[in-house]
Amino acid sequence: MNRYLKSSLTIFINGANRIRRYQFSRHLSQSSANLEPDLWESVPGLVRCPANCVPLSPISFLERSAKVATLAPNVPAMHELHFAVPMAGAVICTLNTRHDSAMLSILLRHSKAKVIFADYKLLEIARGALDLLVSLETKPPILVLIPESIDSSPTSITSDTYEYERLLATGLAEFSIRRPKSEWDPISVNYTSGTTSRPKGVVYSHRGAYLNTIATFLLHGMGSMPVYLWTVPMFHCNGWCLIWGVAALGGTNVCLRNVSPKAIFDNIALHKVTNMSGAPTILSMIVNSPTSERRPLPHKVEVMTGGSPPPPQIFLKMEEMGFGVSQLYGLTETYGPGTSCVWKPEWDYLPLDEQLRLKARQGVQHLGLEELDVKDPLTMNSVPNDGKTIGEIMFRGNTVMSGYLNDLEATKEAFRDGWFRSGDLAVKHPDEYIEVKDRSKDIIISGGENISSVEVETVVYSHPAVLEVAVVARPDDHWGQTPCAFVKLKDGSHVDSEEIIKFCRDRLPHYMAPRTVIFEDIPRTSTGKVQKFILRDKAKALGSLS
Amino acid sequence: MNRYLKSSLTIFINGANRIRRYQFSRHLSQSSANLEPDLWESVPGLVRCPANCVPLSPISFLERSAKVATLAPNVPAMHELHFAVPMAGAVICTLNTRHDSAMLSILLRHSKAKVIFADYKLLEIARGALDLLVSLETKPPILVLIPESIDSSPTSITSDTYEYERLLATGLAEFSIRRPKSEWDPISVNYTSGTTSRPKGVVYSHRGAYLNTIATFLLHGMGSMPVYLWTVPMFHCNGWCLIWGVAALGGTNVCLRNVSPKAIFDNIALHKVTNMSGAPTILSMIVNSPTSERRPLPHKVEVMTGGSPPPPQIFLKMEEMGFGVSQLYGLTETYGPGTSCVWKPEWDYLPLDEQLRLKARQGVQHLGLEELDVKDPLTMNSVPNDGKTIGEIMFRGNTVMSGYLNDLEATKEAFRDGWFRSGDLAVKHPDEYIEVKDRSKDIIISGGENISSVEVETVVYSHPAVLEVAVVARPDDHWGQTPCAFVKLKDGSHVDSEEIIKFCRDRLPHYMAPRTVIFEDIPRTSTGKVQKFILRDKAKALGSLS
Repeated sequence: MNRYLKSSLTIFINGANRIRRYQFSRHLSQSSANLEPDLWESVPGLVRCPANCVPLSPISFLERSAKVATLAPNVPAMHELHFAVPMAGAVICTLNTRHDSAMLSILLRHSKAKVIFADYKLLEIARGALDLLVSLETKPPILVLIPESIDSSPTSITSDTYEYERLLATGLAEFSIRRPKSEWDPISVNYTSGTTSRPKGVVYSHRGAYLNTIATFLLHGMGSMPVYLWTVPMFHCNGWCLIWGVAALGGTNVCLRNVSPKAIFDNIALHKVTNMSGAPTILSMIVNSPTSERRPLPHKVEVMTGGSPPPPQIFLKMEEMGFGVSQLYGLTETYGPGTSCVWKPEWDYLPLDEQLRLKARQGVQHLGLEELDVKDPLTMNSVPNDGKTIGEIMFRGNTVMSGYLNDLEATKEAFRDGWFRSGDLAVKHPDEYIEVKDRSKDIIISGGENISSVEVETVVYSHPAVLEVAVVARPDDHWGQTPCAFVKLKDGSHVDSEEIIKFCRDRLPHYMAPRTVIFEDIPRTSTGKVQKFILRDKAKALGSLS
Repeated sequence: MNRYLKSSLTIFINGANRIRRYQFSRHLSQSSANLEPDLWESVPGLVRCPANCVPLSPISFLERSAKVATLAPNVPAMHELHFAVPMAGAVICTLNTRHDSAMLSILLRHSKAKVIFADYKLLEIARGALDLLVSLETKPPILVLIPESIDSSPTSITSDTYEYERLLATGLAEFSIRRPKSEWDPISVNYTSGTTSRPKGVVYSHRGAYLNTIATFLLHGMGSMPVYLWTVPMFHCNGWCLIWGVAALGGTNVCLRNVSPKAIFDNIALHKVTNMSGAPTILSMIVNSPTSERRPLPHKVEVMTGGSPPPPQIFLKMEEMGFGVSQLYGLTETYGPGTSCVWKPEWDYLPLDEQLRLKARQGVQHLGLEELDVKDPLTMNSVPNDGKTIGEIMFRGNTVMSGYLNDLEATKEAFRDGWFRSGDLAVKHPDEYIEVKDRSKDIIISGGENISSVEVETVVYSHPAVLEVAVVARPDDHWGQTPCAFVKLKDGSHVDSEEIIKFCRDRLPHYMAPRTVIFEDIPRTSTGKVQKFILRDKAKALGSLS
């Protein structure tokens, strides 16, 4: 690990604002694509099947000797570990920085992590989790502290804790990289981010990570030597596989510990950022930022957004500011990005509102995925490409997860009938581009009619006073369910429920307009996804309107 | 085949200058990456070993039901066949358009082709080859004529000949694509282009073609929807895998039946070409073109050159004209491109002659290759990276051929000790970039000293009167061998042997300067490589100088 880090990184240290820049050469190609089909299926819960490998082939098995967990924001050490851990023959498991000690202890126990690297700001949470493990008579992992900076003195090192930079300094100069015996070996475990209550450990393989990395930097339109600003959490799908992607292209990573509009604009100007990504919440943060925090862009900055369908207005405002925005769609189970709305040159000549409508769709699968379809989940028939019939989005290809760690039942369920079932509902347009309508569990059924919560949200969002919105079902004795909108207004704006409801009734069929509007903050996961299960509980507590 | 061609190509026909443009969507991802390791190793002569797959794994085998040969220049049908043939579950074998009937009959017999697609201009050669097969009591393949244009009436169709466009019209509308059962299935056979006397059938797999395609368009710095001008023969390494690559990026192919400076400049201007490639002979054609045939470039056109090391002066002249030139190095056995001289930003600040010196090197391996090394072919030790010690270039990776068709002995020899041995000699510089010095058989040994023919050629080429040069060994009773230069002068130039020899002695160690200079045309293969074996025979016929 030490030799790798010392020999192949060019590190620029900017002590003042906590940014380090990296320049990697082509290490990706060195550490992957090992072909022997062997010892892979012995890891509990993992299978290779037509959903992630067409066709299935029984192979031998490999039990990896160690797993390593990390608990860190977008800091340089987090980036280094994404190379160092697989190169040491281990599997990296990046944990959400918003977990508390209790959740952390559950995930450490489930993943059987041998070592945990914890950022200095998260040290107490990590220590709390290890204490919980000890109280459960489970052997805790070794704790390694990532300090504030390379030269900062460790804050609270005790005898049972290692310190990251010191550990590097004691590394073996002659360490040679351990390549995977098979390209199907696990490279990482990503716990799903918690829009549902029970986190699952999604396992990625070296092969899938390799192919998805290539597909992702192609989606981003990254050329040689990009400058990438880390506004997407590295713990989320291993930074959409771009941690490896930027390295493959010899690029520069600009790491941010905390994301704010000022930090984004300052770093774009300072480092001449070419690419960045982020959930719609990041885009919303940018377009709603005070003018005083903005700075002119040095050139067009390409932004990929995903995580949830963004309102079309966001695209327009971002492009007015000089960003080029494209949309990705995917899940943790598809290594992050799975589709993108590839722009067709002939669309340049369409009216603006038509362009926005086209751009808001989720599009077509990327180069790494073999098949994308929208199907009836019962009959498995493809829905017609009429832009109307709703079905479930399903995937097949090499960039579909290996399975859920230690959860064969969940793996089998996700891969039933040989396709990966996303749980997301969509239509297929005449040009074969897909458009997400909702999560299966987010659809609202009112008087027997399906209502896409996303469609209602798009209309509410277009009201000038609205900053954020989420629509869920409120139980109803008469209609079964009715739409209930949770709205956060822009600073200084004042509108009431009636105005929002009227605004929607002017623009939507009557049954689709919200019957209830509640003004409050929208709860989100750390990756920017709305936690609708919390809102559903609140709406349920309101009782029936009829 | 028909359904595919009708549904997924946008075809622009320009009847006047014989150019068709294509726009493909992402079919590459549809037709590859099938994973079942099976029936692959039963095809005679093919192995998977540490040179093309690390580590070796016995797999089952697949005998493909048909092979299909093509004999055509860079015309649209040739491009279509590169998709249609693999999609029909067959293997494509593209044949050099300069072969005569005798050579063609040998290759058709060796490849056991079932169908041959022949361009109308090559019909008589193809018929001659089929007649030869019949005379040898070998069943000839079915002949399909590719007409001059879609709407031209077939010229000389007989009862035993099909016509390409008519055949398409009778295709099944409901044909479904046959995907490979295993990604290791052969996709194409490329016969080596004849710098040696005995052609060998180099087999590519679907997997290798997939990975090399990605590596190649990344090398070319191609963005989304490139416009690619076909100045490199499609029959050479399947157009360096770019036939598939341009399609993967949704790009446009501009096909040229014949390459000339006027056609190159006209098409760049007309179609706003972004990328092209070609052997140094194409670059030489461009920089030496009459001013009357040149047209202004619409923007910087990126050119990849390879095939043989180009003289540094060519780079300079091309860049003065507005082209960006980069160098590739590879062999038919590495799917064409294997390395490139990746430009480092810090080199921008070096003096021009230093930049040219760096740029003339062959560089580092591309993303698809795992390992590149320069080794002593006997001890297999790596040479030191001193820029001086000469060794043999060796490769390992997924983009190394599957083997030589029906020639297991040659395959084993090429993969001896688990590396693919290129037969090319090079040095490794302190920055690990390699620089080709010569083919093993082209090195000249004079008085016990190794002389790189390429180094001598570079000096001769820098003489202002010289258009082309090739240096080979002339047998010598005293020295063993001495350098003998074959020179083609520019139109209107007059210099004699003495001047060339003096010019070299002023710039090289005495023993490296040519002792003999012969003024005549340089024989080349259709891909622009000098046929040194012809020149060696001529030099041998001269006898000893001493």
